[in-house]
This record gives sequence, C-alpha cells and structure tokens, in this order.
Amino acid sequence: MPRIEVVANVLKANDTIAAINRQTITAAGATAFNLLSAPGSGKTTLLQKTIAALAPTRCAVLVGDLQTSRDAERLAADTADAVQINTGRGCHLSAEQVTEGLTKLPLQGVRYVFIENIGNMVCPVSFDLGEHRRVVLYSIPEGDDKVAKYPLLFQCADIILLTKVDLLGILDFDLAKVKADLAQVNTHAPLLHLSTKTGEGVTAWLEWLAEQRPNRQPLQTG
Amino acid sequence: MPRIEVVANVLKANDTIAAINRQTITAAGATAFNLLSAPGSGKTTLLQKTIAALAPTRCAVLVGDLQTSRDAERLAADTADAVQINTGRGCHLSAEQVTEGLTKLPLQGVRYVFIENIGNMVCPVSFDLGEHRRVVLYSIPEGDDKVAKYPLLFQCADIILLTKVDLLGILDFDLAKVKADLAQVNTHAPLLHLSTKTGEGVTAWLEWLAEQRPNRQPLQTG
Repeated sequence: MPRIEVVANVLKANDTIAAINRQTITAAGATAFNLLSAPGSGKTTLLQKTIAALAPTRCAVLVGDLQTSRDAERLAADTADAVQINTGRGCHLSAEQVTEGLTKLPLQGVRYVFIENIGNMVCPVSFDLGEHRRVVLYSIPEGDDKVAKYPLLFQCADIILLTKVDLLGILDFDLAKVKADLAQVNTHAPLLHLSTKTGEGVTAWLEWLAEQRPNRQPLQTG
Repeated sequence: MPRIEVVANVLKANDTIAAINRQTITAAGATAFNLLSAPGSGKTTLLQKTIAALAPTRCAVLVGDLQTSRDAERLAADTADAVQINTGRGCHLSAEQVTEGLTKLPLQGVRYVFIENIGNMVCPVSFDLGEHRRVVLYSIPEGDDKVAKYPLLFQCADIILLTKVDLLGILDFDLAKVKADLAQVNTHAPLLHLSTKTGEGVTAWLEWLAEQRPNRQPLQTG
C-alpha cells in the first residue's frame, strides 16, 4: 500500500521537524500556541486583542493563509513580530513552514508565540507544528453539530474557545448538545465562552495563557 | 521531486474516475451539483429546502462527512435517496467515493444529484467528482475577507450563494468589498443572496438549478 506509506513518511518527517521547533521556542523562553478552527471563527481578531492586552510582554505571530497578507497586516499594528506564511493550495501549516517562519522572527524577549493555522477543521489536526498547546476556536454561527462531525479536532484541543457567544441568543445553538458531544471526545480541555465584541471571557483566556507558561509567572498587563 | 509526482498522479486518477461518474449521471438523465463551502454555511439545510421544493421531481444526495450520519439522517426525511460517505480523516470527497456512493443510489427517474462535500474551503477544490456544476456557499458570519483568502474556491464556482443574508444587518460584513474581490477572481458566476430562514432567494436558486438541466425543461414544483 504505497499511498499509506507516503502519508506516514510525510507525517513522521513533520513530527521530527516539529520537535526541533518546540526545542527552539522553549530554549528562547517562549511558549507556543497553535490556533485551529474553521474559517471566520475569529482567530485574527482574538490575537489582536490578546497581543494588545499582554503588552508589554512580547508576542510573536506566525499567520498561515493560502493567499493575501491581510491577517499579518491586521496584526502588524499590534506587534512588530508578525510573519505571514502563504501556503498557496496547502490546506494546513507544516512544521517546515513554521521553521522557515521562525528564521524571520527574532525570539529574544518573546514570551508567547501564536501560530494562526489555515482555517480548516480537518487537515491541520494531523500536523504538529512544534507548539506547546493547541487552542481550538468554535464560533456560534457554525452550528451546534461540529463536535460530532469533527471529533478529531476537538479531541486534540488543550482549550476550546466558544467564540462569538454574543450571538447565542440570536442564532439557534443548542449548548447542551455541544457539551454532551464534547464529553464523548475531550474531558480535559476547558470550554471557555468568549466574545471579543462584548469582552466576555477575555480575562479568563489571558489567565489560561499565563498558566501555560512553564514557571507560571504572574500575568503582566499594560 | 517524488512528492509532486504522487500528488499529480492522484489528481489524474481522480479526474479519470470523475469523467466516468459524469457519464453515468448524464446517461441516467440527471444533472449533478457539487456543493462546496466552509463548515456551517448551511449546505444541509439548503438541500432539505431544495429537495422539498423540487418534489415530485426526484433528487438524490451524496453527503460527505468525516464522522456521523447526521446530515444524511436530516435529508432522509426529505428523500429516500440519500447516501452518507464517511471519510474518516479525509478532508474532501474523491471521485472514487462518489462512484461507490452511486452504486447505492438508484438513478432511474432522478433528475438532480446533489453532492454535499466536506466542509472545507481548500482541499475539495482540487477534486472533480463528476459533477456538472459547482455551487459555492459563503455565509455572512464567516466575514467579508474569504474571497481574497480562498480565491481558488470562488474561481471554480458556477454560482455563489451568499447564505444567512438575514444576518447582514446584524453582523459586520462589507458586501461591496466582497463584490470587488469577486470581480478579481470570477466574473461569470452569479452571486445570489439567500436565506433559508426568511426564504429570500430560494425561488431564484430553484430557477438557476432548472436552467442547468440540459433541455431546460420548466421547473416542476410540488
């Protein structure tokens, strides 16, 4: 079965490079977060708010997209350390692309590295990029059947951010159903309600981020 | 460059099988539509409404999902001819999976074959399934930057359905920006405003579907 072997080899090579990325980031004293979600769940907006709130603590961002540098441009206003990775037809970031991105980012003094993956609930799941934690965003407009449909995505999450919760009263969304589905696939990741519009959950998100730092130093906000 | 050769061979094999699927569907007197979009854009709900509106004209549906048969179950209430294709970790449907699905669907008397692809704005674009037309759904909550970010998806569309337009006044969405981006990548596909909640655009959608039939027979509605 040559097809399966090719896939296995690609994933093995990716994991090796990912381990090196993780070492590089750890050695620089930073912690890396891989953000995964469907398109339009609010990854870039959340990062804008997060970087602004964490200042003067320094953050670096690697932003994956098929085309355009719009997200990196949006983030450049908040941090000088934003690198765009264009994947063309690629449906996920690879560890190798992150290695290349890291060569363009001076990590000295950086404490948080955020990797914004391609908006896709399937392919990014299989590719370790060298992150320390995986953050999965799930926005209310996507509907309440996504945990059952994309269990592998939610299974790999260290935290699940339920975004755009300001739309909970406006759109049909059965939260109890989502929680029941989550109980089947992931019982360790906290589920955090978040709205960058109203500010709900942002403090809890920042606290969770700080808790992931190896020495749990107190959160420095600007 | 072995990696590129493998990908090219996979796509070539897929296209050959897709051509056979198209012949099979055409020979049966049916027209096939491949529905592509991000997760949660409203493909299943649209198909439920469409199949009900087209009755007694017979429709068949092939539904792709990683896990669960929820979409096929939802559609089974509207048509007996619904087949679920579970792809496991697969991020798109392939022509081969459609061939297999078609063996479970009696095409006699069927006029419309709808193929609901995996919710993913990237990978399904590269795989011809044997459809006659490509339908791209783009929902308002996804935000107004998706045409620029996923140009290949919008480039391949024969029609673009802007879904959940009832949210246009509620969410930030710059329609002029989307139209300007579309003018760069696709000038032939109509852009149709649609809301299965208010019913806006549904008649125009049904008319477009009927126009794609080879002999443009008048639309039969129940």
